[in-house]
Amino acid sequence: KDRARLLIKCPDKQGIVAAVSTFLHEQGANIVASNQYTVDPEGGQFFMRLEFEIKGLSEQVGQLKEKFQIVAEHMDMEWRIAMMSELKNVAIFVSKEPHCLLELLWEWQSGDLLANIKVVISNHETAREMVEAVGIPFYHIPVTKEQKKEAEEKQNQILKKYDIELIILARYMQILSPHFVEKYESKIINIHHSFLPAFIGAKPYERAYDRGVKMIGATSHYVTNDLDEGPIIEQDIDRVNHEQDAADLKKIGQSIERRVLARAVKWHLEDRILVHGNKTIIFE
Amino acid sequence: KDRARLLIKCPDKQGIVAAVSTFLHEQGANIVASNQYTVDPEGGQFFMRLEFEIKGLSEQVGQLKEKFQIVAEHMDMEWRIAMMSELKNVAIFVSKEPHCLLELLWEWQSGDLLANIKVVISNHETAREMVEAVGIPFYHIPVTKEQKKEAEEKQNQILKKYDIELIILARYMQILSPHFVEKYESKIINIHHSFLPAFIGAKPYERAYDRGVKMIGATSHYVTNDLDEGPIIEQDIDRVNHEQDAADLKKIGQSIERRVLARAVKWHLEDRILVHGNKTIIFE
Amino acid sequence: KDRARLLIKCPDKQGIVAAVSTFLHEQGANIVASNQYTVDPEGGQFFMRLEFEIKGLSEQVGQLKEKFQIVAEHMDMEWRIAMMSELKNVAIFVSKEPHCLLELLWEWQSGDLLANIKVVISNHETAREMVEAVGIPFYHIPVTKEQKKEAEEKQNQILKKYDIELIILARYMQILSPHFVEKYESKIINIHHSFLPAFIGAKPYERAYDRGVKMIGATSHYVTNDLDEGPIIEQDIDRVNHEQDAADLKKIGQSIERRVLARAVKWHLEDRILVHGNKTIIFE
Amino acid sequence: KDRARLLIKCPDKQGIVAAVSTFLHEQGANIVASNQYTVDPEGGQFFMRLEFEIKGLSEQVGQLKEKFQIVAEHMDMEWRIAMMSELKNVAIFVSKEPHCLLELLWEWQSGDLLANIKVVISNHETAREMVEAVGIPFYHIPVTKEQKKEAEEKQNQILKKYDIELIILARYMQILSPHFVEKYESKIINIHHSFLPAFIGAKPYERAYDRGVKMIGATSHYVTNDLDEGPIIEQDIDRVNHEQDAADLKKIGQSIERRVLARAVKWHLEDRILVHGNKTIIFE
Repeated sequence: KDRARLLIKCPDKQGIVAAVSTFLHEQGANIVASNQYTVDPEGGQFFMRLEFEIKGLSEQVGQLKEKFQIVAEHMDMEWRIAMMSELKNVAIFVSKEPHCLLELLWEWQSGDLLANIKVVISNHETAREMVEAVGIPFYHIPVTKEQKKEAEEKQNQILKKYDIELIILARYMQILSPHFVEKYESKIINIHHSFLPAFIGAKPYERAYDRGVKMIGATSHYVTNDLDEGPIIEQDIDRVNHEQDAADLKKIGQSIERRVLARAVKWHLEDRILVHGNKTIIFE
Repeated sequence: KDRARLLIKCPDKQGIVAAVSTFLHEQGANIVASNQYTVDPEGGQFFMRLEFEIKGLSEQVGQLKEKFQIVAEHMDMEWRIAMMSELKNVAIFVSKEPHCLLELLWEWQSGDLLANIKVVISNHETAREMVEAVGIPFYHIPVTKEQKKEAEEKQNQILKKYDIELIILARYMQILSPHFVEKYESKIINIHHSFLPAFIGAKPYERAYDRGVKMIGATSHYVTNDLDEGPIIEQDIDRVNHEQDAADLKKIGQSIERRVLARAVKWHLEDRILVHGNKTIIFE
Repeated sequence: KDRARLLIKCPDKQGIVAAVSTFLHEQGANIVASNQYTVDPEGGQFFMRLEFEIKGLSEQVGQLKEKFQIVAEHMDMEWRIAMMSELKNVAIFVSKEPHCLLELLWEWQSGDLLANIKVVISNHETAREMVEAVGIPFYHIPVTKEQKKEAEEKQNQILKKYDIELIILARYMQILSPHFVEKYESKIINIHHSFLPAFIGAKPYERAYDRGVKMIGATSHYVTNDLDEGPIIEQDIDRVNHEQDAADLKKIGQSIERRVLARAVKWHLEDRILVHGNKTIIFE
Repeated sequence: KDRARLLIKCPDKQGIVAAVSTFLHEQGANIVASNQYTVDPEGGQFFMRLEFEIKGLSEQVGQLKEKFQIVAEHMDMEWRIAMMSELKNVAIFVSKEPHCLLELLWEWQSGDLLANIKVVISNHETAREMVEAVGIPFYHIPVTKEQKKEAEEKQNQILKKYDIELIILARYMQILSPHFVEKYESKIINIHHSFLPAFIGAKPYERAYDRGVKMIGATSHYVTNDLDEGPIIEQDIDRVNHEQDAADLKKIGQSIERRVLARAVKWHLEDRILVHGNKTIIFE
């Protein structure tokens, strides 16, 4: 189609909306949706997301970008324009637990997750069958302490080969090296099996059980080199009670993880997320 | 302060956002928040809400309105500009059950409900003490079939006297006459004690109990002359189970009613609601 | 294992709990879980669910039942004892939309749905592949007005062949005949795509959209011959807003349907549901 | 009335339910509600809550307790029998923020909180007027580092004078001394303004804002001498987004605190909570 999304981040000042909307109007655009947010109206940061339609846009999006660059420079903007018809290339990393992977594959098959899932990479063979059954290439790359670097090099080659724009850690139980993470800033989404910042680190369900909490949760966030400290995209919780033991919490938690990760991934794919420091601005 | 809200409703076409934002920019405005919605991008209806700030606006808002009228006519807009510092004049109608009234008074006292609550009108004496305790005039106007007309005339005089812009039916158990309702289109908010359209009409908790539902709810809506059929503003629910009888459901329901009505009223007071046919567009 | 569930329904009177627990104690049982409910302590109906363990129970459950019958007669009980190791035989009926079927198959594969899914019956071919892929027999039995009776006879033969104890209508878009329904009282679970009793009947999402509701839901209930009026087992809802059209509501609704049906089915499989008139008592 | 609650905690073994229910049957009791829980069926701890009715119980509850002591000793039970007609004596501690106190007073006035609220104690004068307005004695006891001991002695005298059985810390911003806390084991309920164990300690809303969480919560727990580490009774959360600043989170959080504390207090007053180590077993 001829629809695109424009995302903008710049220092707040008067006239931004006027400049952008006038520009789009002059290009013959119909603005279909628009969201904006200012951290602090006095000298703060301004964020904007627009969906617009221009007849014949797909053939001339290059020119549009060139023209917009002039407006953008004037306003000191970081920006991007993404055609809605161009799906993002996605890689999924998984270890042994398949529930998050399965949820993503399912939603992808039913047309609810608009992405090109190009490849699944795992440090185990467990998920091979279910991945190949839906026609997606599966790579088994074992990771040990000793050859972590080599493993990441192999992963990188695959990511380059498929021109990957988003990496989803769907319960991938390895810590990525700082070097790797830096290459994919705001492009790696992880699902953590706790209601962060509660139970940072390992074995959150066991610790939630030990603490006797009445709700457990899951958190989806962008990966940074501060473990479990990256910008939070989405969280959700479910009630539990004294009758549930740690194994029950884990089961319940898996269903929370599925929906939290799926939501975060969709928002990313629809260009609804802007990162500001250690926080996310989400234009739902 | 110098902040205002602009609400717009017009046929969708290209250039609306550009025209409005350019106009505001020319007036020296900083757009602080902006939301829009189009029912159907092809020939549908366009809705917009903007919050903006102009230095010295409070002294010159009249001129601003005059100038904007030219833009508005051009685009065939229905619109209004409301200063954020000018609170709306509100009347609350109540019968015997005070829980919704109390919630509103409480939030008003704590500064969470930004309105001028000018008057409480009731067909019973029950609420007099709690209303007068917080310094709001209370009028007892009994309503019977025979003298409903006279009662509504009295109510109307009071509403005029206090220049009322919003009527809240906080569990007011009388049906207003069509004549009365027409005068206050989209300006009367009711709380219905069921999850509409389930259990339209009387005794919803008893009927919910008889049906064995597992969730009960409440619905806040604008009053029209189709009973319980006006545009829905907000709904919420709580879980119930077999152990709760009709009296329990009523108790649980009252707490839902409190929060649903309070939310709906706040959105109205913040000019977040636009009515389109029998639906509401809510810019949260 | 040696665990079983005892379900009891009888007129309330003094001494029921004492009689049942003394009986179980005498048989060497350890009571692991116990729930009870009385509709009305004065002359009402009494309901109870116990989980208990007796060493070697699996070899002697027949004798236990015979002995308990004496207690039961004395107290005028309807009752049943179900070994926890004996999974129920289940048939799933489906039409074209596969989301509820898929959820059930998935949870069954991951070990979360403890049942023998013996067969899937459909009036369309759509689901054949996904059913046969997991090794479950699939029967395509077309249904038209003219040959509905013949179709139901075929269905019945299959149900008998597999000794089916629970039928799940996982979005099966045919109305079963009264004759069929009577044979499976409290043994057919349906998922209705609305928050009953709102939007009884056809096209609930379209009607929810037209009414402008702010929440949509789904309802799982036992099938009776009053269409959409059977005892409600479970309901759930999600928020929607003005931006979602009828097609969006349908998508959101499907995810509600999946979880509501799965929960209802699990409670039935774990003998947690007792039917009382048109209501369910659920011992969670 | 003639209803009472029996609470039991003892090592699990066969025959407990039989012994208790047979005893109650012999006393002419009708068991109205019953819940039980075993931490581990093999040699774990057993917990039980029964509601029962015996004609004329109010005159003979002393004898009943004496008789039950024999059963209890046999089974090594900790137990208590509480008449439902005997309301617990409650003291509320508050500092400056009145929202939790107000919620409790309100529910108490409307008959939803069945307790004798005997006294409100505060280290500030802020709440005096609203407390005395409903006829409850208010004591202002300032607390400083230097005279904390003296302050607690005064508090203690008041608590003894009114024979207080439950202390509610309704946003009381002082840490009680170990000596004080020990005297009221499982009898002091606190509301913490975060979703524990996230944001233990001071300024949780500010820290939640800084971390960019998408949900904030509140936690009600029994007070122990490990700050914010006592057994959790209830938790709840609400969604937040990037548009809300720390002050907004605080506002939203206050409404969560109100409902979480009120629920926890009700469960305690209805003898629904049993403490097991650092966890609560709640028979809802």
